[in-house]
Amino acid sequence: MSLPARFHPDVAAALAAIDAPALRHVFFVACGGSLSIMHPAKFLLDQHGSLASDVYNAAEFIARAPKLLGPDTLVVLCSMTGTTRETTAAGRFAREKGAVTVGLTVEPTSPLGQSVDFPVKFEAPYTTGVPIDAKDSNYSCIYQLVMGLVAARGEEDLTKQLIDSLHNLQTVIDRAQDSFAPLWDRYAEHFAKQDVIYTMASGASYGAAYSFAICVLMEMQWINSQAIHSNEFFHGPFEVLDDKRCFVLLKGCDSTRALDERAEEFLQRFGSSENILVLDADALDLSGIDDRFKGNVAPLIFFDTLWRFIYKVADFRQQVMLEGRRYMKKLSDY
Amino acid sequence: MSLPARFHPDVAAALAAIDAPALRHVFFVACGGSLSIMHPAKFLLDQHGSLASDVYNAAEFIARAPKLLGPDTLVVLCSMTGTTRETTAAGRFAREKGAVTVGLTVEPTSPLGQSVDFPVKFEAPYTTGVPIDAKDSNYSCIYQLVMGLVAARGEEDLTKQLIDSLHNLQTVIDRAQDSFAPLWDRYAEHFAKQDVIYTMASGASYGAAYSFAICVLMEMQWINSQAIHSNEFFHGPFEVLDDKRCFVLLKGCDSTRALDERAEEFLQRFGSSENILVLDADALDLSGIDDRFKGNVAPLIFFDTLWRFIYKVADFRQQVMLEGRRYMKKLSDY
Repeated sequence: MSLPARFHPDVAAALAAIDAPALRHVFFVACGGSLSIMHPAKFLLDQHGSLASDVYNAAEFIARAPKLLGPDTLVVLCSMTGTTRETTAAGRFAREKGAVTVGLTVEPTSPLGQSVDFPVKFEAPYTTGVPIDAKDSNYSCIYQLVMGLVAARGEEDLTKQLIDSLHNLQTVIDRAQDSFAPLWDRYAEHFAKQDVIYTMASGASYGAAYSFAICVLMEMQWINSQAIHSNEFFHGPFEVLDDKRCFVLLKGCDSTRALDERAEEFLQRFGSSENILVLDADALDLSGIDDRFKGNVAPLIFFDTLWRFIYKVADFRQQVMLEGRRYMKKLSDY
Repeated sequence: MSLPARFHPDVAAALAAIDAPALRHVFFVACGGSLSIMHPAKFLLDQHGSLASDVYNAAEFIARAPKLLGPDTLVVLCSMTGTTRETTAAGRFAREKGAVTVGLTVEPTSPLGQSVDFPVKFEAPYTTGVPIDAKDSNYSCIYQLVMGLVAARGEEDLTKQLIDSLHNLQTVIDRAQDSFAPLWDRYAEHFAKQDVIYTMASGASYGAAYSFAICVLMEMQWINSQAIHSNEFFHGPFEVLDDKRCFVLLKGCDSTRALDERAEEFLQRFGSSENILVLDADALDLSGIDDRFKGNVAPLIFFDTLWRFIYKVADFRQQVMLEGRRYMKKLSDY
C-alpha cells in the first residue's frame, strides 16, 4: 500500500512498520482530554474497518490488564505534553506484553515518546500560544493512523480523501467560528451564572462533549457538569431537565444524528430555549471535507469553536482560564 | 463442555446452541440501568477470555452499525420489562445482520424476548415488589453467560466456582446491608439537602456508579450527578472538589482498587469527610464468594445496598421514589 504524499511522516513510518493484516485488536489508551479523542477514533474504525478495539483510561487499562493484550495487538496512546504518568506507564506496560505501541504527543522526546515504539508528533495551540493548522492536530494524526490501518488491511482505502479533507479543515473551522459567533454572544453571560451545565452528544461527537464537560467546564470553570449520551438521556438523566437547567447539545452530522435530534426536541419542549445551546454541524459550510468524513470532523470543529465560547464565559465569571485551577499542575504529588 | 447442574436453564440453552469457538466478537447492548450491567460483564470477559467485545447504548449501536457486526458475532441485550424500544430494535437489527442474539428480560414473551434467538428470564424486585435471590438477577445471568462462553471456547472453566459463588451471594448481600446501615444513618439527611452528588468507581464497579448516578440520583431524586471514573477524576473533574461537594465512592475489590484508593485519599484531603460517602468492599464479609469473583460481585452488592440509602434520602427530601418522575413512563410519546 502506498500512502498519499501529504500523510504525516510519523504516522506513515508507524504504518510502514506495523503488520496491519496480522493485528487482532487495537487499544486506544489515554487520560482526560487525550482520552476524549479516542472515542471518535474508535467510531471511525468501527464504521470503516473490521478490526476490534477498546477505549480505556490509562490507569484502568494497566489495572484491568485485558487478556487480549499481547503480540499482534496495537496500543495507541496520547498525552499532549507526553508527561502524563499513567499514559507513559501504559505505554511501557503494553510493550512488556509484546504489543506494538504508537504514542501521540507534541514532544517526541518526552517520557511517553520514549516509552513507545512509534512516537507521533502533533501540534497543539495550548503549548505554544500560536494558532495551529488543524491538519497537524491530534485528531488529524489519529484519523490518519486509523484510516491507514484500514487501507493496509485491504479494506477501504480512503487515505487520499481523508488527507485532502484534513488539509481543508482549518478553513472550515475558521468559517465555523464566524457561523457560531452570534451564539457565543447570546449565551455567554447567562451560562456564566450557572452552577450546573450538562453537555450532550452521540456518535463521533461524544468525545468532544466529554472533553468540554471535564476539561473545560469542571476543570477550568469549576462548573458542575457531565457529558450525557443523547440516547442515554432518555433513560434517567432527562428527569433533571426543567426550565432552569442548561445544556450544550453537539448536534453532529454522522450516522447517529437522529439521536441528537430527538434529544433536542425534548430539550426544547421541556426546557427553556435560553438554556439550550445547540451547535448544529448541518448549519456549517463543510465544503472541502469528503462526505464520508464530515461526521468525524464535526467534533473537532465543535471543540475548537467552544474555546471561544468558554473564554467569553470566563470573562463574565472573572475566572481566568487555566490559572483558575486549584489542583492540576499545582500539587507536586498528584 | 458440561455446565454445572445449577446453571440458569435459559443461559445453558443459549450456550448449548452457540458455536462459541467460532465467535469473533460480542456486543453488549442496552439502555440506562440495563446498560450499566454490561460494563462489569465486559470487565469479566476482558480478564478471563480472549474474545473482544463492545458495550453500546442500543440506539447508538444501530446508528453506528459497526462493520464487525454479522455472522459469528454475539449480541447480548438486556431490558428489564423487555419493552425498551431501542433495545428491541437493536435485537432485530442484529438478527438481520446475521448475529446470534441473547436477550435478558423478566418477561420472555415481551417484545425484546421475541426479537432475539435466546431469551433469558431473570428476576427483579422492582417488578414484583417481592425480594429476589441475587442468583436470579440480571448480573447473575450475564456472568453465567460470560463465563460459560469462556469455558466453551476452551479457556478457563470457572463455571462451577461461579455458580457456587452466585448461590451464596444473597447471604453476602444481606450481611452487607447490616454492615453499611450505620453509613446510611450518618449520611442520608445531609445528602438529601444536596443539589449535586457525584458518584465514583473504576473497574467492575463503574457500571454501578453510572446506574446510581443516572437512574437513582438524576431520575428519581432530580439531583444533578455524574459517574466519574476514579482515575479520570484526576484529569479534570477533581477541580470541582471543595469542602462542600458531595461524593459517593464505590471502593471495589477487583484489580483496579488502587485507583479508588488514590481517589479516596484526594477526596479526604481536599473535601470534607461528612461529604464523602465511601462504600468499601474490603470491609465486607464476602465469604462464600470465590476469590476470583469477589471484585465482580462487589458492584451488585453496592447497587443493591444503595437502594436502602436512597429510600432514606428520599424520606428527607419528601420525594417519593419512582412516583417522583416527571417524564419517564408519564409521556406516551417518549
